[in-house]
Amino acid sequence: MPSDLEIAQGATLRPMTEVGALLGLDADELEPFGRHAAKVELSALHESTTRGRYVVVTAVTPTPLGEGKTTTTVGLTEGCGLAGLRATAVLRQPSLGPVFGIKGGAAGAGLAQVVPMEAMNLHLTGDFHAVTAAHNLLAAMVDNHLQHGNALGIEPHSITWGRVLDMNDRALRNIVVGLGGRLDGVPRQSRFDITAASEVMTILSLSASIGDLRARLGRIVVGFDRDGQPVTAEDLHAAGAMAVLLKDALRPNLLQTLEGQPALIHCGPFGNIATGNSSILADRLGLQRSDIVITEAGFGADLGFERFVNVKCRTSGLTPDAAVVVVTVRALKVHSGRFTVSAGKPLPPEMLEESPGDVAAGLANLAHHLDIVAAAGVPAVVAINAFPDDHPSEHAVIERFAHQRGVRVAITRHVAEGGVGAQDLVREVLAATQEGSHLRYTYDLEDALEVKLRKLATLVYGAADVELTPAAAADLRRFAALGYAGLPVLVAKTHLSTTATPVDRGAPTGWVLPIREVRLAAGAGYVYALAGQMQTMPGLGAHPAAERMDLTDEGRIVGLF
Amino acid sequence: MPSDLEIAQGATLRPMTEVGALLGLDADELEPFGRHAAKVELSALHESTTRGRYVVVTAVTPTPLGEGKTTTTVGLTEGCGLAGLRATAVLRQPSLGPVFGIKGGAAGAGLAQVVPMEAMNLHLTGDFHAVTAAHNLLAAMVDNHLQHGNALGIEPHSITWGRVLDMNDRALRNIVVGLGGRLDGVPRQSRFDITAASEVMTILSLSASIGDLRARLGRIVVGFDRDGQPVTAEDLHAAGAMAVLLKDALRPNLLQTLEGQPALIHCGPFGNIATGNSSILADRLGLQRSDIVITEAGFGADLGFERFVNVKCRTSGLTPDAAVVVVTVRALKVHSGRFTVSAGKPLPPEMLEESPGDVAAGLANLAHHLDIVAAAGVPAVVAINAFPDDHPSEHAVIERFAHQRGVRVAITRHVAEGGVGAQDLVREVLAATQEGSHLRYTYDLEDALEVKLRKLATLVYGAADVELTPAAAADLRRFAALGYAGLPVLVAKTHLSTTATPVDRGAPTGWVLPIREVRLAAGAGYVYALAGQMQTMPGLGAHPAAERMDLTDEGRIVGLF
Repeated sequence: MPSDLEIAQGATLRPMTEVGALLGLDADELEPFGRHAAKVELSALHESTTRGRYVVVTAVTPTPLGEGKTTTTVGLTEGCGLAGLRATAVLRQPSLGPVFGIKGGAAGAGLAQVVPMEAMNLHLTGDFHAVTAAHNLLAAMVDNHLQHGNALGIEPHSITWGRVLDMNDRALRNIVVGLGGRLDGVPRQSRFDITAASEVMTILSLSASIGDLRARLGRIVVGFDRDGQPVTAEDLHAAGAMAVLLKDALRPNLLQTLEGQPALIHCGPFGNIATGNSSILADRLGLQRSDIVITEAGFGADLGFERFVNVKCRTSGLTPDAAVVVVTVRALKVHSGRFTVSAGKPLPPEMLEESPGDVAAGLANLAHHLDIVAAAGVPAVVAINAFPDDHPSEHAVIERFAHQRGVRVAITRHVAEGGVGAQDLVREVLAATQEGSHLRYTYDLEDALEVKLRKLATLVYGAADVELTPAAAADLRRFAALGYAGLPVLVAKTHLSTTATPVDRGAPTGWVLPIREVRLAAGAGYVYALAGQMQTMPGLGAHPAAERMDLTDEGRIVGLF
Repeated sequence: MPSDLEIAQGATLRPMTEVGALLGLDADELEPFGRHAAKVELSALHESTTRGRYVVVTAVTPTPLGEGKTTTTVGLTEGCGLAGLRATAVLRQPSLGPVFGIKGGAAGAGLAQVVPMEAMNLHLTGDFHAVTAAHNLLAAMVDNHLQHGNALGIEPHSITWGRVLDMNDRALRNIVVGLGGRLDGVPRQSRFDITAASEVMTILSLSASIGDLRARLGRIVVGFDRDGQPVTAEDLHAAGAMAVLLKDALRPNLLQTLEGQPALIHCGPFGNIATGNSSILADRLGLQRSDIVITEAGFGADLGFERFVNVKCRTSGLTPDAAVVVVTVRALKVHSGRFTVSAGKPLPPEMLEESPGDVAAGLANLAHHLDIVAAAGVPAVVAINAFPDDHPSEHAVIERFAHQRGVRVAITRHVAEGGVGAQDLVREVLAATQEGSHLRYTYDLEDALEVKLRKLATLVYGAADVELTPAAAADLRRFAALGYAGLPVLVAKTHLSTTATPVDRGAPTGWVLPIREVRLAAGAGYVYALAGQMQTMPGLGAHPAAERMDLTDEGRIVGLF
């Protein structure tokens, strides 16, 4: 069995002009970045009266191995293409942190991959690096402002703007900067987040235009002055230069699936600590120029899908026609609470034995995520992402459960078979898009910030209540008093459970969501609450994926999968 | 008078296939990155029996405004093209630090620019970002190794490998990482350098092939174990993944001059704290496929040119046929000691008055740099980079001085006139390349490390002696004992004077070079000595260039010059 990398390296790719033509794009609407990747000009976006069907892919709570949301997005796109539809996949660009950490590549798997997978998994067209540079330019200008007299009167301890790197580097979570001497900055405590968690990344994903990007950058609040008033990137005269750095990054990237459908790759992952959704511009571009757009939202429906609804769709005004909820036999077995799996290690052999009972014992988690999708008013399709080790009786448990709930369900074998293996799913998804979607938000913007947080906790996570640290509660009140009461709320929360505790399984209720800190993302347009021990900078494991990667003398990459 | 940015934005560019054809490159030897930039495949390099003429551009000690080494490199290339030669410019990619700091753009000026100047000055094809990522991946793997049991027995205080960002950010010069708790790394002091100062950048610039790059990355020493033995990137299994990240960055970037000659852009600037030379691969590619290659070496001849000779040429085996020493009236007036200029401020009005005496009073600096070039055995041409405010009598002082020394000299007006304005310089340079070059290194590799340092200090900088701190002296002995005695030595030194004191003018003698610290760059292949207060991470000024940059709603960049 060839590796994902070998399959991708062996593929014959369509010329980019041909991929662009599938979207009705002229050659001059594509700027090449490498032989098989291009930036799409924003001029290709137009006011369209018609649009294609809009399908969002979400999932149950994944194991650390991931349950195949990306492969399903790609495979479903391939399947739609095979069925004669003009289909476009919209995906987030992988972060170098996980690529070199646990995951290796994140461009799909098997016959359901975006290619060139090496470009997608590494620097691609440099968007993440541009976000890193723009974010860190603002940070340097904040510290530089302190150094040169602090005319704006920024209170150093109030500075909330850290720095970012696209790397899993836990040693940068808590740092002291500005040591040395008088010429080496003002000493203070600070932090690095991973680039995907940067507010700049979310701004990029939510911006409707260059002008909107520029304005949002200007609204970023870096900290507060001695009177407690917000100090913005505009106040520091940094927003213009940040926009200059992000000029190219605002344009979606065009790649292709292994079966030659267009794949728009834009913005960052991390549905746990960011929105975890690709950009509004990419979705809109696809919708204007395709019969159907399959877009991915990160992690379980409690995370990426919730943000898709309450932040992305609320901002864009677009509403999805259907949601695909990816489930695997192994995930439900884990949600039975009877097994533990670890990234980078083989599954425990007892998990591979035929055991429909274990699958059934995990169904509470699937039910929970289907409830979230149903509450949002979006027709759902359960996609059983089939693995070679699955047993038909185990699939049958899931199918039966879906039928009992009146939810569409299909087994999909896109990893092994490509678009051919996704035809059942294609049929169910197309049918679901005919049902009629009536998008409902979890909360109203008029709700108080604490109310929004409580609605997320109870209606989406299944918690009984929210508990804020005194500092977090005070900050929420402060943000409201400063005029930010109308913003949505985002919770940074583990993706490994529906609660704030990563080891929880199934769909626990009766627990309390602990919020230790809240941050203001005024440019992106939300308030950001950190739950439990959630970190905004991951660490590497004992044996990072990087250890097995190499470059041959001929320049061939090995070990990236 | 249009700004540099306006001139560049208004230019009509040649299609890249046409620019490539000037180098005899087929379309499949170019990989496009943007409409007017491309990566050149390494397969385009071949064993060549003939090569073009090889000209290095250096300068007197510059003022903070820069004296036009880049414009001269570009203008001379344009001039050679106009004279019917197949001419190629080889330049370093600008660093975002100075672009957003003091300099604004660094792609030339007026009619002597590399275009597209916005691509060149911003992310270009992402090489700097790739260096940043590779460098910081190794750093994360070092700290991760400490976190997960430290099997190699790395002594935390001995770790010399910091992190890098392509940013002027003084607050990152001295930091403490790993604070927080047990899961947040091991607390220790560390630092960020600017990306151009990364050993990875120098490795890229000195590598002869992918295999050489991979081997050099493996040899990087990150620190020492409890027995004092070096711990390498290979020991940490990080070098393969670093090479994967640098795969594209190893290929030179092809752009063009405003008059359509090929411009190969590769690797980083900072002749003060790095080698400040573009890559051997780019020079070699140009030499194989052009009649003449004009390559730039950073700052004065005491810095970039010294490294060009003792490190770059020694590594490549190539020898230059001539050196252009750029001089300006304003630089010599400053070297008279009678004036002070500051970056970002207009010249003092009294400096603009006709005053050949002030120019003559600064000639010692020109003499010093000509001595360095002469000692290296390379025929020199003094290029008087003419400014509109210069007076003919002031140019005459320089011409007379050159004639007296028997050195070729030409006035060049490439900024105002392009290649036409460089024809006198073209004639003198071509004549100089006929004189015969006999390259001599400043020191032998067999010299002891301290001897090499002393020879650089006395023969290149004009110092009377070297003074090492006890720690630096001990480290030199330690490096020698570990088998690194045969490496060249690089001095990180201010570029604003020939000494270690930035405010010095002219060419002082009788002073002592103070070395406070030495670092080992075993992958790049040199020992690195820090002189005086020299920092490896610059800071921003009170009003960084970033403050005036912006992006219009139509996506046009303004304020980048």
